[in-house]
Amino acid sequence: MLNPGDTIGILGGGQLGRMMALAAAKLGLKAHIYCPDENSPAFDVTPYKTVADYEDEAALEAFAQEVSVVTYEFENIPALAVDFLKARLSVLPNDNVLKVSQDRLTEKNFFNTIDIKTAGFAPIDNQDDLHQAVESLGLPALLKTRRFGYDGKGQKFLKTPEDLAGAFEEIGAQPAILEAFVPFEREISVIAARNEQGQTVSYDIAENVHKDQILNTTTVPANIDANIAAQARKIGESVAAELDYVGVLAVELFLLPESFENRLVANEMAPRVHNSGHWTEAACLVSQFEQHIRAVAGWPLGSSERHSDVVMTNLIGDDIEQRSQLLENSQISYHSYGKAETRQGRKMGHFNKISQRSHD
Amino acid sequence: MLNPGDTIGILGGGQLGRMMALAAAKLGLKAHIYCPDENSPAFDVTPYKTVADYEDEAALEAFAQEVSVVTYEFENIPALAVDFLKARLSVLPNDNVLKVSQDRLTEKNFFNTIDIKTAGFAPIDNQDDLHQAVESLGLPALLKTRRFGYDGKGQKFLKTPEDLAGAFEEIGAQPAILEAFVPFEREISVIAARNEQGQTVSYDIAENVHKDQILNTTTVPANIDANIAAQARKIGESVAAELDYVGVLAVELFLLPESFENRLVANEMAPRVHNSGHWTEAACLVSQFEQHIRAVAGWPLGSSERHSDVVMTNLIGDDIEQRSQLLENSQISYHSYGKAETRQGRKMGHFNKISQRSHD
Repeated sequence: MLNPGDTIGILGGGQLGRMMALAAAKLGLKAHIYCPDENSPAFDVTPYKTVADYEDEAALEAFAQEVSVVTYEFENIPALAVDFLKARLSVLPNDNVLKVSQDRLTEKNFFNTIDIKTAGFAPIDNQDDLHQAVESLGLPALLKTRRFGYDGKGQKFLKTPEDLAGAFEEIGAQPAILEAFVPFEREISVIAARNEQGQTVSYDIAENVHKDQILNTTTVPANIDANIAAQARKIGESVAAELDYVGVLAVELFLLPESFENRLVANEMAPRVHNSGHWTEAACLVSQFEQHIRAVAGWPLGSSERHSDVVMTNLIGDDIEQRSQLLENSQISYHSYGKAETRQGRKMGHFNKISQRSHD
Repeated sequence: MLNPGDTIGILGGGQLGRMMALAAAKLGLKAHIYCPDENSPAFDVTPYKTVADYEDEAALEAFAQEVSVVTYEFENIPALAVDFLKARLSVLPNDNVLKVSQDRLTEKNFFNTIDIKTAGFAPIDNQDDLHQAVESLGLPALLKTRRFGYDGKGQKFLKTPEDLAGAFEEIGAQPAILEAFVPFEREISVIAARNEQGQTVSYDIAENVHKDQILNTTTVPANIDANIAAQARKIGESVAAELDYVGVLAVELFLLPESFENRLVANEMAPRVHNSGHWTEAACLVSQFEQHIRAVAGWPLGSSERHSDVVMTNLIGDDIEQRSQLLENSQISYHSYGKAETRQGRKMGHFNKISQRSHD
């Protein structure tokens, strides 16, 4: 259990690391950011930093000396870094979840093992596998690399048989999976948190809309039945319990039309605070960021209760220029990540528009 | 008008500076803390710092080069620092307000000039003045140094004629005022904000309870009539307008019993974010800290609307040890200032307990 004034080490210096550091500060804890990119936005909110490659053992050793526990803002941490650090101190969430979530095939198998439904899928190691898999799963379907994909990168949507030609080459000729296309009605996600003592909470289910494969808006409450919401929360909580998880995690789910027997299928999970949980910052007393820090610090979790209805909108690229009009809107909380350079497709900030809580 | 990535310079590295720096971070702005004490809690939330005396001209010069605007967390800034900096860049709030608020006599005269009532008062420059003033103002009364007082320091409560003996000596034989005792029913405060464009907002009136002359709790809404609340808000807003003020300010007021014709008398003002505004962090979309940063950055102010009822409680000295039980309470938002050393009477943190907004 950490004490006030102790330091949490955070691997990754993007906006998620930045917001975790700000949450640590509110709790009286220090944050030490480790990131290879010296222009990382998280470096602006703490004096404690390491600028080094994730496989630099001397830097990892010095980092381990400075911090009481290590957490991270992204799941694709090199195994060397995790192995090196966990030999010296707690790395939370533990690496059970990294092994599962770094590989889409392992992840899908994990979901199925604990009775969480997924779309049909098949491992793809070459172009021949792809043709065979399409025969059983049908078209349209999604070809995705097993590792290191995010925001639609390393993916190809296959609509017609013609799209198959050269597709395996196109995603880099690396281990992949084919996922059957799911005719979903909505995309939703659950944000759950669990601490070392096994205390588990989940937030109200969020409804997500993507644009160009990047999250655009999150609306809470989601427009779904109460029993679907309860099932979705249970999925988040059972993933956390199954993996002996400590921290915040997100599970993205597809909601299928009423004609389907199993209406909820898991898409993927993220072993960290998640963009679809940014709404908690404005609509809850305890945000996902604070919840994560509490869990990693060995402290009691807080309430996930929501005092307001909310729509979170990402500010991508030039969207950040809307600052003045957003600041002027009395229902909006504006958050900028302080990134020096605006680039197309880059997440620059977000805003939460709150309204009086609807009765449910 | 500041741009994202610009730096706000903050004089003072205590919890107020720390919370302003955290608010700046949310808006994508950097904070540079200037404070002589290298153990200042605000130094833990930004990499940009100056550890130097407030009258160190070389350090002030370097600081001025690094920041786009200067603000402060305390009103007793040496005039040299303000004069030096304002010759180089904007210091906000401007020094009109420092001249007024650094001296209790000037402050009371200012209030009266703009038709805000105060308790009776008289300047005291020696023990004889004190005896004369007691004859006209009566007992009990409060003897206070004109400058550099806070949290009850530099004050003496005079109850009986015997208490007068040696009183002027006791407060340091320095310029002082005597204030008539006001039989107040409640202590309330107004937090107002104003920006360069003249946009002004005030928050709902807070009711304060002190313990050992230090703020203990703030409750919002205050248990007062709507017309009293409206008058109090108008006082805050008119002080801001009168001083061409930019930033957040607080005015502490006494509410007198119904038998008095003028029920509201001003006690003192603070040209900065204020302990009695910490409740805004948990009960409003835009906190007093964010409001101050917006004003100083030349940005639009946000809404002061309150989504919840709230009671703020300070954690003084050993109170901070209650951490676990506070974290476990689902209605409570806990905030620690990360101070390394717990001392009796030292403000270590605070917590906000929110509940559903009462109808009004």
